[in-house]
Amino acid sequence: MVKTVTGENYEVHDLSLAEKGQKRIDWARKHMPVLGQIREEFKKEQPLKGVKIGACLHCTKETAVLVTTLRDGGAEVFLCASNPLSTQDDVVAALTKEKNISVYAWHDMDNEGYYRSIANVITKKPQISIDDGCDLVTTLHKLKNGSKDPEIETVKKYGATADLMDNIWAGAEETTTGIIRLRAMAKDGALKYPVLATNDTPTKQEYDNLWGTGQSTIDGILRGTEELIASKVFVVSGYGHCGRGVAIRARGLGARVIITEIDPHAALTAVMEGFEVKPMTEAAKEGDIFCTATGCKGVIRLEHMETMKDGAVVSNTGHFSVEVDVVALEKAAVKHEEIKHMVDRYTMKNGKSIIVLAGGRLVNLALATGHAAEVMDLSFSDQALAAEYITKNKNDLKAKGGVVVDIPDDIDIKVATLKCKALGINLDKLTPEQEKYLSGWSEGTA
Amino acid sequence: MVKTVTGENYEVHDLSLAEKGQKRIDWARKHMPVLGQIREEFKKEQPLKGVKIGACLHCTKETAVLVTTLRDGGAEVFLCASNPLSTQDDVVAALTKEKNISVYAWHDMDNEGYYRSIANVITKKPQISIDDGCDLVTTLHKLKNGSKDPEIETVKKYGATADLMDNIWAGAEETTTGIIRLRAMAKDGALKYPVLATNDTPTKQEYDNLWGTGQSTIDGILRGTEELIASKVFVVSGYGHCGRGVAIRARGLGARVIITEIDPHAALTAVMEGFEVKPMTEAAKEGDIFCTATGCKGVIRLEHMETMKDGAVVSNTGHFSVEVDVVALEKAAVKHEEIKHMVDRYTMKNGKSIIVLAGGRLVNLALATGHAAEVMDLSFSDQALAAEYITKNKNDLKAKGGVVVDIPDDIDIKVATLKCKALGINLDKLTPEQEKYLSGWSEGTA
Amino acid sequence: MVKTVTGENYEVHDLSLAEKGQKRIDWARKHMPVLGQIREEFKKEQPLKGVKIGACLHCTKETAVLVTTLRDGGAEVFLCASNPLSTQDDVVAALTKEKNISVYAWHDMDNEGYYRSIANVITKKPQISIDDGCDLVTTLHKLKNGSKDPEIETVKKYGATADLMDNIWAGAEETTTGIIRLRAMAKDGALKYPVLATNDTPTKQEYDNLWGTGQSTIDGILRGTEELIASKVFVVSGYGHCGRGVAIRARGLGARVIITEIDPHAALTAVMEGFEVKPMTEAAKEGDIFCTATGCKGVIRLEHMETMKDGAVVSNTGHFSVEVDVVALEKAAVKHEEIKHMVDRYTMKNGKSIIVLAGGRLVNLALATGHAAEVMDLSFSDQALAAEYITKNKNDLKAKGGVVVDIPDDIDIKVATLKCKALGINLDKLTPEQEKYLSGWSEGTA
Amino acid sequence: MVKTVTGENYEVHDLSLAEKGQKRIDWARKHMPVLGQIREEFKKEQPLKGVKIGACLHCTKETAVLVTTLRDGGAEVFLCASNPLSTQDDVVAALTKEKNISVYAWHDMDNEGYYRSIANVITKKPQISIDDGCDLVTTLHKLKNGSKDPEIETVKKYGATADLMDNIWAGAEETTTGIIRLRAMAKDGALKYPVLATNDTPTKQEYDNLWGTGQSTIDGILRGTEELIASKVFVVSGYGHCGRGVAIRARGLGARVIITEIDPHAALTAVMEGFEVKPMTEAAKEGDIFCTATGCKGVIRLEHMETMKDGAVVSNTGHFSVEVDVVALEKAAVKHEEIKHMVDRYTMKNGKSIIVLAGGRLVNLALATGHAAEVMDLSFSDQALAAEYITKNKNDLKAKGGVVVDIPDDIDIKVATLKCKALGINLDKLTPEQEKYLSGWSEGTA
Repeated sequence: MVKTVTGENYEVHDLSLAEKGQKRIDWARKHMPVLGQIREEFKKEQPLKGVKIGACLHCTKETAVLVTTLRDGGAEVFLCASNPLSTQDDVVAALTKEKNISVYAWHDMDNEGYYRSIANVITKKPQISIDDGCDLVTTLHKLKNGSKDPEIETVKKYGATADLMDNIWAGAEETTTGIIRLRAMAKDGALKYPVLATNDTPTKQEYDNLWGTGQSTIDGILRGTEELIASKVFVVSGYGHCGRGVAIRARGLGARVIITEIDPHAALTAVMEGFEVKPMTEAAKEGDIFCTATGCKGVIRLEHMETMKDGAVVSNTGHFSVEVDVVALEKAAVKHEEIKHMVDRYTMKNGKSIIVLAGGRLVNLALATGHAAEVMDLSFSDQALAAEYITKNKNDLKAKGGVVVDIPDDIDIKVATLKCKALGINLDKLTPEQEKYLSGWSEGTA
Repeated sequence: MVKTVTGENYEVHDLSLAEKGQKRIDWARKHMPVLGQIREEFKKEQPLKGVKIGACLHCTKETAVLVTTLRDGGAEVFLCASNPLSTQDDVVAALTKEKNISVYAWHDMDNEGYYRSIANVITKKPQISIDDGCDLVTTLHKLKNGSKDPEIETVKKYGATADLMDNIWAGAEETTTGIIRLRAMAKDGALKYPVLATNDTPTKQEYDNLWGTGQSTIDGILRGTEELIASKVFVVSGYGHCGRGVAIRARGLGARVIITEIDPHAALTAVMEGFEVKPMTEAAKEGDIFCTATGCKGVIRLEHMETMKDGAVVSNTGHFSVEVDVVALEKAAVKHEEIKHMVDRYTMKNGKSIIVLAGGRLVNLALATGHAAEVMDLSFSDQALAAEYITKNKNDLKAKGGVVVDIPDDIDIKVATLKCKALGINLDKLTPEQEKYLSGWSEGTA
Repeated sequence: MVKTVTGENYEVHDLSLAEKGQKRIDWARKHMPVLGQIREEFKKEQPLKGVKIGACLHCTKETAVLVTTLRDGGAEVFLCASNPLSTQDDVVAALTKEKNISVYAWHDMDNEGYYRSIANVITKKPQISIDDGCDLVTTLHKLKNGSKDPEIETVKKYGATADLMDNIWAGAEETTTGIIRLRAMAKDGALKYPVLATNDTPTKQEYDNLWGTGQSTIDGILRGTEELIASKVFVVSGYGHCGRGVAIRARGLGARVIITEIDPHAALTAVMEGFEVKPMTEAAKEGDIFCTATGCKGVIRLEHMETMKDGAVVSNTGHFSVEVDVVALEKAAVKHEEIKHMVDRYTMKNGKSIIVLAGGRLVNLALATGHAAEVMDLSFSDQALAAEYITKNKNDLKAKGGVVVDIPDDIDIKVATLKCKALGINLDKLTPEQEKYLSGWSEGTA
Repeated sequence: MVKTVTGENYEVHDLSLAEKGQKRIDWARKHMPVLGQIREEFKKEQPLKGVKIGACLHCTKETAVLVTTLRDGGAEVFLCASNPLSTQDDVVAALTKEKNISVYAWHDMDNEGYYRSIANVITKKPQISIDDGCDLVTTLHKLKNGSKDPEIETVKKYGATADLMDNIWAGAEETTTGIIRLRAMAKDGALKYPVLATNDTPTKQEYDNLWGTGQSTIDGILRGTEELIASKVFVVSGYGHCGRGVAIRARGLGARVIITEIDPHAALTAVMEGFEVKPMTEAAKEGDIFCTATGCKGVIRLEHMETMKDGAVVSNTGHFSVEVDVVALEKAAVKHEEIKHMVDRYTMKNGKSIIVLAGGRLVNLALATGHAAEVMDLSFSDQALAAEYITKNKNDLKAKGGVVVDIPDDIDIKVATLKCKALGINLDKLTPEQEKYLSGWSEGTA
């Protein structure tokens, strides 16, 4: 078990890493000009003055830039990890020195530590919840409805009580996986407060999920395997934004890519973009490297792994670690070796071995450093502006009850516009004549 | 002026082309397996029995497959051209021999002929309007509201009256440009009957607008110029679905592509996909070949053309011929030569010349043969199913009044599914356990 | 049989096409700035003064620019066709009006006409032979060694005699196929005079064979089939320069590409570039569109075609029409229809049909317009400079006897440099310090 | 200064890393099936029995597989590092335990250590030299010709003498940079023994230099900067095999790539492949990330860096660290910070900062792990077979004197064939009829 140190506003692994962490945060800040611009506005206008924000996020250098921005806007921020492996220990060490920021996170947390940290956030009575994968919002809801799940016992043990959810005005959720869960909750009538779908903004979908995940996933696979991607058959399960990003990047490095899908529209798009689409039973036999990006479970199962080539590499970049059935592989394997940190070889009865990256957890966060700062710049700008929006519209939102709410268009347009500016992209502007033309309808074919 | 022959159910250029046209229609039918499948269903179920459909479409071999499918579903179809240049004279000649189909179209129609043909459709009292660029629906509306526009005078001259619009249950519109106009009308309260946005289905957007336009536009430019695309700087205005398709295909043939945009999201996407984004004033100086795909007007203006390289090629693939200001160029030019059919060279005062393709009209239809049959297969399957949907729901729809209505999801999912089948794409299927997982929300990070 | 008209210096199809042909030649000249530059030099320096050149080339607008350039350098040029289908009748009509140029070519020549034209060139006693596919050089050699082949009988009938080869100083050959044949001849001791391998220059290989063939082949297939390339499985046989160009362009239009190869280096390169490599027996079952580019014969055989999908499209872009065994297909087919000019459907006993483009002949010349003028600009500049080089070094060359000779590096560097200039490409220049560094060897790892 | 431990057959950093190193070597061996096949042959046939081989190579896990293969073929191998930063300390620790292998290398050697290690190899009297960048061969030659360079003083201090070169039969060189130097030496008459150009084999050029360097360089830049490559302007200097590989991979990750070149052929190829080519003075202003791959010096100079954007990233993947003038930057900078290991920020007088990766040394070896094992599999198979070839032909080779010798074709064809087999690539085979056709020349156009 990883040891931790505890203070008034923190539980982290090692405070002595703070200086190194601060350097990384500074580096990230340099690469997040949009959030930097918003921070300047926040400093002046203090839109979050006195607001308590609970955030359950990957505790990386970029998240540090987000929480300091929220804090500079007037908020008090309580941060815990949204994944046991993604915390950068040096970064959270640096955050412990920040005013009005509390942080509970360390790399390689066990289950108890993970939910203790969530409890440490919940008990501070946040008014806004910011989530990456929904663990904060689901914990609050299970607590409320008296769930007997072991993790709820854990948060109760550390002081969390059912009434704490009542403080929440609204939440904001970062991931596709989280939004799927929230919509399922809303459909069941189980969701009790409104959550803004930060994940569904154009920049999040088309920039973060697509290119952020694409690059960082390949990066994680590269660092884990040190294999040449060119000449390999690379199988991607799921051709949503994340899967598509991974597929395009794998092709960009020379792989021949096969897609598995359940959705005909996604499958058609993949084929139109030049990819081969096959069921997993067939793809399993051809692939050298596999990566799941579905938001579903049991996508690569033992029955598939048994037919793979000797030495096939299996990984996941979907939010939860259930996409590859590593549990079944572990059970069926006759031998299990750790090749290096986060790279395991399982030898099966048929004599062939499977290489599993990051134990089936998010390969981009576990083996590389997650999304680039430039990517998080956009998503986190949306998160910061969402927090401002919730604060300004808290009563209207609360009245909506348990629904998933779209981020208003003008917020994401602002983010995209600031990003274009930061990249030095110059846009054309409509002339008055063009504006008139676009709003009219009476000119016909001449 | 092109001469025409007239019969009870047609006005076309030359009936003797019918046999050649029939061969082309047969070829198209072979390449439209989804519509073929729907046709088999229509034959059995006769969902359009007795329905009168007015269609204003590009009169190509693929459209012939659509209108015969509608007819085989029980409808009587009246077809006119949605563009003066896109009619395939042999195809319409073949259509004159079909039962329950009327056709009014010929290549290189003049304005009078164009609107006479629309009148010939309107006066048959159609109950459903199918449009490609909105000319049928706008003519009906202008007629209704007493417009004094010259084209309305024309349709009145040929017997169209204001009351004819009352027969219409609903319409369906094929193009982005058309939908923009319809939404403008709806916003103004000017739209008087509901129109289904066939254009907005996923297959139309992601398949037809994107890859259909992409390939056929490049094809038109190739046939017009016979230039090597590789080593050229190719400027695409507009990075919507159509523009993106053109940009990707131009790059696929080796060009260096520059995008001009007014929208920050589209610009960001272009940059993330590796393109350079610049204002037209700068791009004009660098480009060898230009293509507009904006749905706007005056995108390439004289002021831009004056700064282009000698011999720069200018074209348009947006619906209307106003995106490139050919009128201003014509006026300013000191010399105008026709190099070959649809390829004109204008020499400007500064001594440099501009090559204009298809007079600024749709380059893919005028210089190539428009979208491939496989592409139209999907859009036209949506159109056929939309006609069925309108017929079944005519009362509900009529009650909605002048709104733009989305095509129900299950229609386009059916189309995509049939297309996957036709392409031999095998999809994975969710296991019961996966379905349960996706609809649940209580599993957290373990 | 196509009818022809004959004059003192020509046999062509129709003189009335001359004006249209002249426009096309002018257009080509505008797109051939490198040859234009060389022409200016030739006009001044007259390096070919009094030289007789026999050229057996595709008689296109670009070839017209080459032969007028040679003529402007002082030569008398005799031109015949190197392919029965590639002649542009309007272009050769225009050439009949040029001084010191003779031309014998028409579209869709029969075998007798083809060899009569070669005879018409040979009997003019050329001193330099310029070939595209070696027919001129092999005819001269067969004539010399008393071959009884029917085509030799034909050339003899039209006055060609064995001694005419003695006038030749040296030749130049444009194609990979031709060079393979010439090396085979040289190896056998059968080659009797030196031939410069214009085909082997870097610009010919990397520019013309690769990108010229790539684009024009796809163009031919597009015009022939009007199919959407995206979503198709496209099989390319041979991954030499031509095949690689076709494969990259097919992928650039969205196809999934499969390569067949016999050479392990070429196969590895294809795989590293992300393509799948399979034997033809397997690829035949998967492909929608096939194109051969091997320089070999019998690459797609009846046994393969019998296993193809119904409606599979088969074409060839290698020099000779023997790569696809159309003869065997024709024999085995139960039905043969011409869909349109150069597009034939053969129905086999198994009920499936095969679409053959251009009868298995060069699809880019037969169905499209061959290489773009910009491409021919480089190859033909090499040809023009090769003719100058032969003239200057005729004695040295003649002394070499029957060998294949590389074009001197400085010729092709001159061509590449002029092309960079024409494209506006600015290169860096070595500083004196850098030049010294590159020619030295004593600096080690510091 | 890094501390080392010394034994009879080694000088390395830390023997305790041996177990970890052995795991890495085993991993590499699994990914080097071609060399594995050769090793099996070597074990049986002992072609290198009693031969002494001196090798100056990057001391990585793949090199360990090479030297054990040579040893298993009967050789005694003496290994030193060809770069001060590329040694993997765990790998060399593991090698100390191997019989008949001596190793002198550690990460971050100083200049004295570097040349002491070379001396330790030379004094063992090798008969074959294997080089990666020519340091072994140039040291031997300088020693011979009495050079007074400080590094020669160093090797003499550690026992190397002028006569030792006389033992050498021939060498083999791995890199483009090395071959350039050797040809310069040969041209000067300075080269005294033959060296096989392993670098010039097709697999080395088209596989290792191109795709190996491409991927590993991007990997190094990614690990160093953690930046998103998409949306960045990426400048690559030099469009040889290495630079082209980097450019294609950078584009594959979404960058817009600009090339700088001095050679018109390379520039044309870059443009035909869709890249922009500009002089460095212009590219410097536009780039976000720079990478040199030229084999030259002073390619990115202070004058360029002064015009770069604030925060521009500068790196090198050419063999020597002189391509970027880091020395001049260091001198001119007002501030120098180490951001993290191998990542330095220099702030210039104009207030802008430049990020330098790996101090201008090979970024793929310093910041990532160099070429993937699959890549080295081919190059090192050529090296192993080259050693066998030298041994078999030592007398003939010695007689050639100081020349650069091509690796015989059949060696690299064997390597490519074994690689195809390992990848499961099935090739077509020529039928007897096809073979006859290809060697004949008498079939003409029919």
